[in-house]
Order: sequence, then C-alpha cells, then structure tokens
Amino acid sequence: MGIMKGVIAGINPGAHIIDICHNILPHDIGNGAYLLSTSYKYFPKGTIHVAVIDPGVGSARGIVCVETQDYLFLAPNNGLLSLIARKERLKNIIHITNSRYFLPSPGHTFHGRDIFAPVAAHLSRGIKIRQLGAKIDQLECLDIPEPRFKKPGQLEGQIISIDRFGNLITNITRTHVESLALGQRDSEVIIGKKKILGLSKTYADVSDGKSLTLIGSAGFLEISVNQGNAQKYFNVDRGSKISIRLMKHAQSR
Amino acid sequence: MGIMKGVIAGINPGAHIIDICHNILPHDIGNGAYLLSTSYKYFPKGTIHVAVIDPGVGSARGIVCVETQDYLFLAPNNGLLSLIARKERLKNIIHITNSRYFLPSPGHTFHGRDIFAPVAAHLSRGIKIRQLGAKIDQLECLDIPEPRFKKPGQLEGQIISIDRFGNLITNITRTHVESLALGQRDSEVIIGKKKILGLSKTYADVSDGKSLTLIGSAGFLEISVNQGNAQKYFNVDRGSKISIRLMKHAQSR
Amino acid sequence: MGIMKGVIAGINPGAHIIDICHNILPHDIGNGAYLLSTSYKYFPKGTIHVAVIDPGVGSARGIVCVETQDYLFLAPNNGLLSLIARKERLKNIIHITNSRYFLPSPGHTFHGRDIFAPVAAHLSRGIKIRQLGAKIDQLECLDIPEPRFKKPGQLEGQIISIDRFGNLITNITRTHVESLALGQRDSEVIIGKKKILGLSKTYADVSDGKSLTLIGSAGFLEISVNQGNAQKYFNVDRGSKISIRLMKHAQSR
Repeated sequence: MGIMKGVIAGINPGAHIIDICHNILPHDIGNGAYLLSTSYKYFPKGTIHVAVIDPGVGSARGIVCVETQDYLFLAPNNGLLSLIARKERLKNIIHITNSRYFLPSPGHTFHGRDIFAPVAAHLSRGIKIRQLGAKIDQLECLDIPEPRFKKPGQLEGQIISIDRFGNLITNITRTHVESLALGQRDSEVIIGKKKILGLSKTYADVSDGKSLTLIGSAGFLEISVNQGNAQKYFNVDRGSKISIRLMKHAQSR
Repeated sequence: MGIMKGVIAGINPGAHIIDICHNILPHDIGNGAYLLSTSYKYFPKGTIHVAVIDPGVGSARGIVCVETQDYLFLAPNNGLLSLIARKERLKNIIHITNSRYFLPSPGHTFHGRDIFAPVAAHLSRGIKIRQLGAKIDQLECLDIPEPRFKKPGQLEGQIISIDRFGNLITNITRTHVESLALGQRDSEVIIGKKKILGLSKTYADVSDGKSLTLIGSAGFLEISVNQGNAQKYFNVDRGSKISIRLMKHAQSR
Repeated sequence: MGIMKGVIAGINPGAHIIDICHNILPHDIGNGAYLLSTSYKYFPKGTIHVAVIDPGVGSARGIVCVETQDYLFLAPNNGLLSLIARKERLKNIIHITNSRYFLPSPGHTFHGRDIFAPVAAHLSRGIKIRQLGAKIDQLECLDIPEPRFKKPGQLEGQIISIDRFGNLITNITRTHVESLALGQRDSEVIIGKKKILGLSKTYADVSDGKSLTLIGSAGFLEISVNQGNAQKYFNVDRGSKISIRLMKHAQSR
C-alpha cells in the first residue's frame, strides 16, 4: 500500500489519500464487497474509490472504472463492485486497457502498483474515464446471498462479515426486520443451538458477557456479546446461517 | 477509521489527520488512557485529540470535549481521559449534546462515525466548544493504580502496558526510581520468581536474550529482553505485579 | 509511529508523510532491508526515506543520512541500507551527531521519536545534510546471501521475505533465471521434497490450491499457491533453501 501511495504522489502530489481497510482476509472478494458498500457513501462527492481484492491479478479478469452519480470506482472486474451495482445507478462502466496511464512494468502480479495507483492518480488530475478504454455493458457480479423466508414470520440469513471486536454482521437488514413487524421485544434470533430474545439498541443494553442482537451501524442485524467476542462465544464463521423470527408469545398476542 | 476520515474530509477537506494507534485490545480503556497520555504532548499546539475506546457506545455514558492549555480532547466520558486529567489543568469540560454537529444516523453503535468525526471536523473549522453543549464540572476517572511502598526501599507496581515488541511498561516512574535513591547498579527488580539486577540505559546493554530494566521512552520503568520478547519470557500480562527495591549489598554500603 | 508523525507535524506542518510498512518482524533488519530496496524507487524524487528497524537503539551503532541521486535515507547504521548500497551510488554518508536537530529527551530507547522524526522534518524544511554531522566513508552492511550455482544449470537460493498472502520471495532474480536460459516450460524449482515444474506469469495460471513459481513484482523468483498460502503449504520460513534448475527433458533437447 505504501508503494501505491508513492506512485500516486509521483503523479499527483496534491492527492488526498484515505485508507479504508487493509486486513480483509486474502482472496475474500465477498467481504471486500461488503466493506466497500458500507463505507463509500461517507466519503466526499468526487472521491475515487480504489478497491484491490484481486486474487486473479494478471489473468483475463479485466479492470474496470465505474462511474456513479457521486463517485468513481476502480476495481478488478471480479465481483468486488457487486453491492455497489445493487445500490447505485451505474452511469458508465469502462474496461481499462489504455496502458499509457499504467506504470511500465514487466510483472503481472502487482496491478495495485502498476495499474490501479497510476490510473487513480491520473483520474484525480482530471483525465476523462473514456480515455481509459471502451465502455462495456455489464459488471461481473458475485452471487451474494439474500435472506429468505423459511416460513411466514421466520427469516433465514447468514453472517457476511465479522469485525475486529468479533461482532457478527448478517445479511438481514433493518427493512427485513421491520417487514417482520418485530418490536424490540418480539424477536428471537437463533444461531446454532442458542437463542437471543429481543432486539437491543446498543451493546450496553445487556450486562457484560451476555449476547444480544441489534441493528448495527451499516443497517444490518448484528449479533454481539457486550464487552466480549461473539465470534468466539458462538464459535461461528463467515457464511454461518442464522435465523430470526417472531417469538411465540409475541405471535400469540 | 477510514469511514471516520471520509466523514472528516467531507466537512473539512483541509484537515490534517494523524493516526496514533488502532490496535488497543477491545474494551481496554485503561490501556487507551495510558497510550494517549504518553502521546498527546508530541503533537502541535491546537491539535484536536480524538479518542474512541468506547465499549459503552450508545449508553448513558456521555461524550465530552475537554480543553487544556494547548489541546482539545474528544472522548467518551468513560475514564479514557483519566491520565490527561492528572497531568493537565482542564480549562473546560463540555458535555456534547448538540446534534446539529452530528451525522444524521439511526444507529447507536458507531459514534466514531456519527458523532466524534463530524464534531472534530467542525471544531477544526473553528466552532466554539460552548456550541457543543453545556459545561460540566467533573470527568469520570478510572481507578488507575499507583505504585506503593511495601516497606521502606521497596516499591510495588504493576504492568500497565505491553508494546508490540513484548516490552513490559510499568506504572513506576523515573521519579519513583529516583526517590528510592537507586543508582544504575543498585536496583533489584522482581517479577514473578525472577530477579533483574541493575538498571540499563538501553536494550543493547545486555547480551542477546538477556532480561533488563530501564527507564523507557515515556518515563516509566520498563522490563525487556534484548532482541527478545519480555512478555513471553516472563509469561506475564497487563496487571501483573512487579517489585523494585534497593539491593542488599547496596543498602549495606 | 503516530508520535513520530506528531513530532514531524510540529516542525513542518506541510510535510507529506507516507507509511511503507509497520509489520516487519521485530529486530528483522534483513527483511527491512529487502522491503526498503523494493519500495524506495516508486517514491517521487526528493523523498526522504526514514527506516527504523533498530534493535540496537541507544547503543554505539550510529545513525546515518545517506544521499543518493534522487533520495535521502535516514537509518540506523546497522545494515538496514545494505541493499540500497548495492543498487545506488552513495553520494554522501553522514554520521548524524548534531543534537541541535534532536528532540530534548532523557531516554535512549525511542530514537524514532527523538532523533529520526525531528531530523527528517528539518531535512524536509531544507537544512543541508552536512549540518547533521561529519562525512564517513562506509556503511555497515549485512551479509545478505546471494544465490550460487551448485552445479552448471542449477542455482541455489533462499527465501528472503514472505508477504501477508504467504507468497515466498527468494533471492533469485529475473536476471539469474534468464542466465539459466530458462523458458517458461523448462524450469524445475525444488523446495523441500517438492518440485514445481515451469514458470507461470501470474497466480491464476494454475488451478486453485496448486503451487506455482513466477517472477514477482519486485523482480525476484517467487513461490506461491493460487488462492492459497505457500508458507503453510510448504511449511517453510525465511532462510529456507530453494533450488532452481533446467528440467532434464529440457536439457536433453
């Protein structure tokens, strides 16, 4: 990453660079897609988002520049922009091929340095995205799982991200929870063989070491342990299934 | 953290942001207080220090802005500023409540993004701290242990921080050591069942793999292993007790 | 590192600081030398490179400022600049002693804060390197191993760095490989009891989970596992020996 910043500084010394995250598990495109989708809109209009989770670097996978209303996105065309494509109207998708804006390099394994950094720097100096290559119609997208109803009033989702505190972020959104017509006391979340009753507002709503669920900062249902680590507590991983339903007593009211 | 910087850049694109540390153990307010207390004075006058070790996020814990002679501090009112309060005269303590300077957000779990970042950015653009909320009289403070004399000439302290090299930083200061009237050869540090004789000036004063004590860069007695890892060598943790005393031969002189 | 940046900002608020890397194994000067040598030339001319892998901090080891055609390097004189000395003509080597540019500090264990940061900041404001101390003739250099021919057509090297993906970087360069007159299909790399046939261009040239070799982004022969971790796959470490030779069938052609 330091090298990429060095390359950018050589082309545009005034560029303002902000790191989002450098500890995504190697090759985990899905997690990168999630983190990008929950971060990008907090940056100023005109930001160029550069995302390089790129296990296929140097292969035929292509590199794209995507223009939305407020931003440009630079990424390998490997599904990393799947969730951006769901949330935003894509005004233009350019397949980047113009090596005039690349670093001369004999290598095929560090496109972050040789392509992403110099192209981003040139974009920040005002070149037009059309100068980078030809328009294409579609992005490669991952098959990112959506939660689904197992039966009326019971939704099954999965854990899509785990933060450094061990909080489990699911693909169940605030909207899903509201569609279940759940009040704060009416939900039952099932994870493995354990249940968590009720929705909290914040971690400290339960006593230390107790598990809880809440709608987290990115708008997804999240499973946590106050002052603890939910990943260790529940012994789960990315992809683990969880279920949320109306509690019986609530349904019978 | 990247999201917080994005929020700041949106409000004050010219803000100069420096990261102090992002790998404090989750929920370890005491360690955060220590690291902040050894860092803050190396920053230029006028720096706004933003500290977010905040296990009680969203609860009734309050957020404060503290003004000292040279700096502003923004932190949850959970003890994170305990050591600043010991070292500095607090000119003003403001309980932050004015949501005009917050990000509109329905969540209660990421105040770093929704409150700390935008408030810091607005402060950097010159709003007055009184605009953030009402003055209060006192900060919440942690009960941070001070070393104490077990008997004359023998001081007992504890390990308050461990750095990434495994060096053990204690709460015994240079002043404490001087009050024991210890020369470089006269001290005996007891940690578990092991003893270290004499005070070193730097790690390389002993041969590779040997343990030593010295007054570290923040002015605290520190226990180290040259080219090694003292935490593993002594098998200790934050909170472990250590003892320092005049050596017998030194006392009998 | 945050403290060093605070010190720099106090002396030169306009300084542009880029982090290269902060997760080198403690005390591993050789790995630091390698990473610096593969990074420095991607930074703009005039960059001041500050390198602090400094297990002998506070000892007699000396601190140097080295001037090359395009850059200044600030480092402990402990071998950290060994590979820079191989790649660049050193116009000046200064032994830094002028404490006028140091931070006043009673400590001997954090020269990053007390010497490197303020000296770098003063250099960035334009002081001449001669103001820092006297010229010396030679740098301390590490005995960094070169690959050697075991027999004609068979070169033995070792692993000199391992990146966060587990890719194994060897000290065998593109030039070495070319001197063996190896085409893409003719090489046989032996690592432990395993062999890898042929040179790939990029990770995705083999199927998931398969091992491969290629010339990596810094121009060194690299051993990888597509979508996997070569360090775990081969169970090797820095210093492990590897061998590369013309395949028999290729030799007999």
